[in-house]
Amino acid sequence: MNIIEIIEKKKAGKELTTEEIYYFIEGITNDYIKDYQASALLMAVCLKGMNYRETYDLTMAMRYSGDIMNLSQIGRTVVDKHSTGGIGDKTTLIVGPVMAALDVPVAKMSGRGLGITGGTIDKLDSIPGFSSDVSDEDFIRLVKTVGMVDAAQTKNLAPADKFLYALRDVTATVDSLPLIASSIMSKKLASGADCIVLDVKCGSGAFMKDKESAAELARVMIDIGKRARKKCVAVISDMNQPLGYTVGNSLEVEEAMLFLSGIVQNPRLKKLVIALCIEMYKLSDKYCPDTDSKSFKSDAEIEELICETIDSGKALEKFREFAEAQGGDLSFVDDFIEGCREAFDSQVDYMLGVDYDGLVERIFYMDDDPAFIEAIDAETVGRMSLLLGAGRIRKEDDIDLGAGIVLNKVVGDRVERGDLLATLYSNNKRSLTSAVRLLSKAYTYSETVSDRMSEGIIIETLV
Amino acid sequence: MNIIEIIEKKKAGKELTTEEIYYFIEGITNDYIKDYQASALLMAVCLKGMNYRETYDLTMAMRYSGDIMNLSQIGRTVVDKHSTGGIGDKTTLIVGPVMAALDVPVAKMSGRGLGITGGTIDKLDSIPGFSSDVSDEDFIRLVKTVGMVDAAQTKNLAPADKFLYALRDVTATVDSLPLIASSIMSKKLASGADCIVLDVKCGSGAFMKDKESAAELARVMIDIGKRARKKCVAVISDMNQPLGYTVGNSLEVEEAMLFLSGIVQNPRLKKLVIALCIEMYKLSDKYCPDTDSKSFKSDAEIEELICETIDSGKALEKFREFAEAQGGDLSFVDDFIEGCREAFDSQVDYMLGVDYDGLVERIFYMDDDPAFIEAIDAETVGRMSLLLGAGRIRKEDDIDLGAGIVLNKVVGDRVERGDLLATLYSNNKRSLTSAVRLLSKAYTYSETVSDRMSEGIIIETLV
Repeated sequence: MNIIEIIEKKKAGKELTTEEIYYFIEGITNDYIKDYQASALLMAVCLKGMNYRETYDLTMAMRYSGDIMNLSQIGRTVVDKHSTGGIGDKTTLIVGPVMAALDVPVAKMSGRGLGITGGTIDKLDSIPGFSSDVSDEDFIRLVKTVGMVDAAQTKNLAPADKFLYALRDVTATVDSLPLIASSIMSKKLASGADCIVLDVKCGSGAFMKDKESAAELARVMIDIGKRARKKCVAVISDMNQPLGYTVGNSLEVEEAMLFLSGIVQNPRLKKLVIALCIEMYKLSDKYCPDTDSKSFKSDAEIEELICETIDSGKALEKFREFAEAQGGDLSFVDDFIEGCREAFDSQVDYMLGVDYDGLVERIFYMDDDPAFIEAIDAETVGRMSLLLGAGRIRKEDDIDLGAGIVLNKVVGDRVERGDLLATLYSNNKRSLTSAVRLLSKAYTYSETVSDRMSEGIIIETLV
Repeated sequence: MNIIEIIEKKKAGKELTTEEIYYFIEGITNDYIKDYQASALLMAVCLKGMNYRETYDLTMAMRYSGDIMNLSQIGRTVVDKHSTGGIGDKTTLIVGPVMAALDVPVAKMSGRGLGITGGTIDKLDSIPGFSSDVSDEDFIRLVKTVGMVDAAQTKNLAPADKFLYALRDVTATVDSLPLIASSIMSKKLASGADCIVLDVKCGSGAFMKDKESAAELARVMIDIGKRARKKCVAVISDMNQPLGYTVGNSLEVEEAMLFLSGIVQNPRLKKLVIALCIEMYKLSDKYCPDTDSKSFKSDAEIEELICETIDSGKALEKFREFAEAQGGDLSFVDDFIEGCREAFDSQVDYMLGVDYDGLVERIFYMDDDPAFIEAIDAETVGRMSLLLGAGRIRKEDDIDLGAGIVLNKVVGDRVERGDLLATLYSNNKRSLTSAVRLLSKAYTYSETVSDRMSEGIIIETLV
């Protein structure tokens, strides 16, 4: 086999065989195929595509390029949830404890943020003492005892994907459905979960800008999952506006804790949490409609279970247990919740980011005429959060865990002159000034509530 | 400027600016753009193309990446001829002496062969003592005194093209019109000729397989020439069958000498030689139809001049002078011509390759029914010549200067049982056996003379 012929074939728009795809992945893993050959093939894939079979083969070849986690010792069906990345997406921090409190084991490996997309591991770093560096033994033990774990991908999982991911980043070959789908799924399949709920984001703050491409990405990933004999469901959710009230690492952990405590729950975030939890529940071993009529529950009943788990405080308690089990300082959780309960108003203004020791700037609504917020462009919010120090432009960059943005008003809210729109946190004065100016431009207003504002967050669920 | 954005732009099928193209070429020359980024861009260019303006900019950026020859000291209009590469193409060895004998200065830099395409420098190496390693001073001096020179490209001409050419070879990004055209023209423009006659080959033995793509390549190169204020003409010629009777380095030099001596002139080769010489003459300072009525000549008159130059022995004498000036042993020329004149038959069978000291195999026509040769597939002949040792698969390969193929019968010839079709020369017994078997399959026959056989070699001349 010959890499030049393989590139030539894909350049001509032809289908690669399973053997050719495995040869390519083995070649890059063992360095007999060079990076300049890999990037030429990646560009040909970007422009000529891959069918489902090729994408599956690419996924499996990358999956097998390194270690594969074996979660069978847990003795339960393990459900994973994966988000394709959005602005203010703290759902893992909420969904994990909710599912664990419902006795659905959650064994999660998360990443760090890059670009405008945050990473759960960075967010968890905001909890003093918390460690995402978990050994294989502890990983299994925590799932068995606590019911959930969230660890950084320290193992040699899908190294071929790591190589290609880094190469795609510097060769303008990122935006290809088969490459995105195989990258995500190779890691998911290597990390050993039995079932995967995919949260596919769609809109200005997401990689997929429109519903059609998001649905196509979802279909490709579900197809890969099915071929690999994994149960796979995708929820396509709107990412034209940020998710919830906060963007930034510790701010998002605070919002997640607020949500779990029931004190403040952003309605859109709540809808997404419930949708994802229902799908995770239905993939779990708690849900066996065919064999056990007692355990069968309707979606409405599952939703009730989920809400009850939060309202009763069980989910927050599970979050505490999870944080403590991975070394987190519980006073961080408890002091925050206590402070919020004591806040003289349930407005997020007085709860989030209050301990930040850097600079703070506020954006106010300054028009004489009252209006409704019609849109807050998610991509701009993400870029401003990055500018404030909450994210990384390059992998080696340091981040400011406390930096970020609180959206004191969200889409659909009515605002009048003097209302606080957003609060920005940063240690960099110059960035803060720029961000205030640019973020102000991300808002659009209308005189009445429009259809656009009332559009739901859940666009489609694909199985 | 940012290479990732440039790649992204071309991937989206957009036009690159002049600045972006120069940034790319400067980046690869100075190593701040990596080969894996260059190959991604090359693949995007292969699949999305470049318009004439971009192709011109790419050509000029590559031209300026190294040294540029200054031929103004010659004080005359210098005409160059370039072939896009074919099987058995020894026209440079004939056209050069003819033009020099007609007082049209020829200053040529040639390359070595790679793959199925031969290189003039390798062919000239067959002349004992001949050196293509010529200093700048000697280059100018030889044009002034002998009227012609043919030197290997030893100077740092268009190094960016060298880098990209090598990269294209290993990343399946060779077959792109803008990349082919800019590669050829960057070297031509760096080597300083005023006027360029392009011999664009078309057919199974050439890179361009059909007339349309050959014509498009010709148009792109002519456009580049015009933008660079050079006079440029392209002759598109058929390469579905090998050119002349020989393929192989010393065999082709022998055929060129036979041609110049007037003893044996393959008719198709003659047509091409005349067509190219007419175009070269008309670009030269000998031809000024607008200003000097005395020097104006019709094509027929120029053809007559060319034939007279050969028939009178002046062209062969110029070849001797040229070979001697670059160190060649004249007895090689004289003994060969003398032997041919003494041969008891004017059949090429008794003239070509007689001094080869390796193994020889012959292919005979063995069918009972006489027939006409309808086709001899040029690509197969090229590949067999390579197999016999006449070419290089990799740059560092050694070649056997005497190896190759003599086509004792050519397309249109009538053959009957026992007729000698071809003679194969090689030092490798195994290769020789394979080549005999495979070359036999390259022939097709018909009972009558078909249109296909009588098709002319000159397809089109573009200005």
